[in-house]
Amino acid sequence: MANMDNRSLVPHNIRDLSPYVAGKTIAEVEDEYDPPQISKLASNENRLGCSSHVQAQVIKAMQEIQDYPDPVSLQLREVLADQNNVSPENIIVGAGSESLIANLCRTFFLNNEEAITANATFVGFFVQANIRGISLKKIPVTDDYRYDLDAIAGAISGRTKMVYIANPNNPTGTYITRSEFERFMRKVPEDVIVVMDEAYYEFAQDVSDYPHSLDFDHNNVITLRTFSKAYGLAGFRIGYGIGPEHLINEMSKTKLTFEPTTTAQAAALAALGDTKFLKKSRDVVKKGKKRLYRFFEKHNVEYVPSISNSVMMILPNTEQAIAFTQAMIEEGVILRRINAFGLPNCVRITIGREHEMEHFERSFEKILEAQEF
Amino acid sequence: MANMDNRSLVPHNIRDLSPYVAGKTIAEVEDEYDPPQISKLASNENRLGCSSHVQAQVIKAMQEIQDYPDPVSLQLREVLADQNNVSPENIIVGAGSESLIANLCRTFFLNNEEAITANATFVGFFVQANIRGISLKKIPVTDDYRYDLDAIAGAISGRTKMVYIANPNNPTGTYITRSEFERFMRKVPEDVIVVMDEAYYEFAQDVSDYPHSLDFDHNNVITLRTFSKAYGLAGFRIGYGIGPEHLINEMSKTKLTFEPTTTAQAAALAALGDTKFLKKSRDVVKKGKKRLYRFFEKHNVEYVPSISNSVMMILPNTEQAIAFTQAMIEEGVILRRINAFGLPNCVRITIGREHEMEHFERSFEKILEAQEF
Repeated sequence: MANMDNRSLVPHNIRDLSPYVAGKTIAEVEDEYDPPQISKLASNENRLGCSSHVQAQVIKAMQEIQDYPDPVSLQLREVLADQNNVSPENIIVGAGSESLIANLCRTFFLNNEEAITANATFVGFFVQANIRGISLKKIPVTDDYRYDLDAIAGAISGRTKMVYIANPNNPTGTYITRSEFERFMRKVPEDVIVVMDEAYYEFAQDVSDYPHSLDFDHNNVITLRTFSKAYGLAGFRIGYGIGPEHLINEMSKTKLTFEPTTTAQAAALAALGDTKFLKKSRDVVKKGKKRLYRFFEKHNVEYVPSISNSVMMILPNTEQAIAFTQAMIEEGVILRRINAFGLPNCVRITIGREHEMEHFERSFEKILEAQEF
Repeated sequence: MANMDNRSLVPHNIRDLSPYVAGKTIAEVEDEYDPPQISKLASNENRLGCSSHVQAQVIKAMQEIQDYPDPVSLQLREVLADQNNVSPENIIVGAGSESLIANLCRTFFLNNEEAITANATFVGFFVQANIRGISLKKIPVTDDYRYDLDAIAGAISGRTKMVYIANPNNPTGTYITRSEFERFMRKVPEDVIVVMDEAYYEFAQDVSDYPHSLDFDHNNVITLRTFSKAYGLAGFRIGYGIGPEHLINEMSKTKLTFEPTTTAQAAALAALGDTKFLKKSRDVVKKGKKRLYRFFEKHNVEYVPSISNSVMMILPNTEQAIAFTQAMIEEGVILRRINAFGLPNCVRITIGREHEMEHFERSFEKILEAQEF
């Protein structure tokens, strides 16, 4: 019989993973630095909270919380189907985009296949591809921090099963246009699945050349959406995938039977019904971005224009990115360095409400004056 | 470049899976049969509901629902560590036992390794092993529906990475004793991980020869527990694993970053603090089982004594199990056939409150009289 000396208890791809290191919580920042105000602009959450309709529906749903959730999220899928002009059979609901990405990785890959994405995109895809143990080609983004679709198409081989594109991209806030998407899809073989992660869709949908991936009739495209961003429900863990029935069917076999939770399903339904809250969230982000661009221009800070709810600033080097983020947190402004996303010299700023953006600007000018970065 | 004709879009182990078929909901039973009363005794949920402390804590937690959950469930792990006399580093919290089983499968297996379990046990382990694509040896249960530990130990080979034991077992309600567990562990090599799924622990813990798996000092045992059963929180999806730090560390790398939800963490904390509710739940199950045993004996029904919150009845054949379950649902009593769990001629009855057990008995006698099964 084998013993521990001559075989590995854990596969290499798992052993080599780093455990997730959480950012500082509001409570920890309070304890450590005791700033007069705290603005959490680190995780692209909705700084307005969520729809006021959510609480009542969640309380109602809790009356049967001892029972397992609806495993097929029927009611929610019907509403989403209606809203997106597809049928419920085209929709799978899961515990957030991360869960759906994990589902994609365990459903479609043979052990020797590979995935392709950009080198500077959502770290969640890197992690899930590593856990699945497949090889992952990371294609460098262009000089203006955009997906290099020509290079990605050129990198597709007979082993390629999936291309992952976040659109708009996280953390850069950039996007691929409608014509770029069309051109790309003409080059992608039909047996390569193209995942369009549209976590920030609601902030992007009105941009004139943004390619709504559902407007196209492709047999190999799966679109991911989430309630964690514009709808403000990150704590509930709920998102959905839309795609051709033959692919959604397979994903349905590998989803956790009872994801997402009963309360998450109720919250999502309530949130979908509140278009006023959604509009307000988008307006706050739109205004906040304009204001931040002006501020950056005034201070000659390099940044990347975004169609998302965050803006990336580019610092001269990694050391300055570290120093800047640290100086800001001491002022109570929690930001996100995005080294894990492949851009160690960049910092991502979630667009918050007016008083939070004021706090950001005031703190920025204070540490600039003190030459702390 | 490859095309769809010469390779598989989906691996065989996924293609061969059946999608989950949900049982009938209360609403569907109402619509279809319109019985005067409905008793849902199908899914081993807690028929008392959950602790009354839960709602207030969930409402409080919803104040920050726009933010991501605590990824390491710190507060909950501290309370659980204290309660179980281990350290927080020995605990991982996940979105229910199914999620933890999925995590075990993706963390530890090399592609050519295998798992061993019983042929009549929790279907969730079968499903996750299939999804991971490893081979699974299912060892027949004994004539009295118990894990055959000698046969399982004998089946361990150099390729065996994991043995899964549900204790008490689901769906049989049987258990392995302390001395059986000790004897078994002496035969298991140190590099084989033994998973003790104790989903029904709270109902079993007072049985004198029940082996609390945490009382032993094994370097290769992981114990799973859940809030879905005795605590009545199935709709929230939350459970935990306890084990040696070197194994828990690896599982922490592959858990979904933000499972379980914010509201689930708050609900679990509230539930742990309400020992009165837990005691009441256990008392109701204890009384309900005694009553059901007497009833079965009166009617000469074969059943298996259980230390869980359900009792399995044994019918002469599959046809009768189907007919019985169907006749009962038409009376409004929802039961669970356990063909998926490997026992096609058996039916599992969740122990409910007094009026639900009365409903069961009344309906049983009615259909018996009408010779419907």
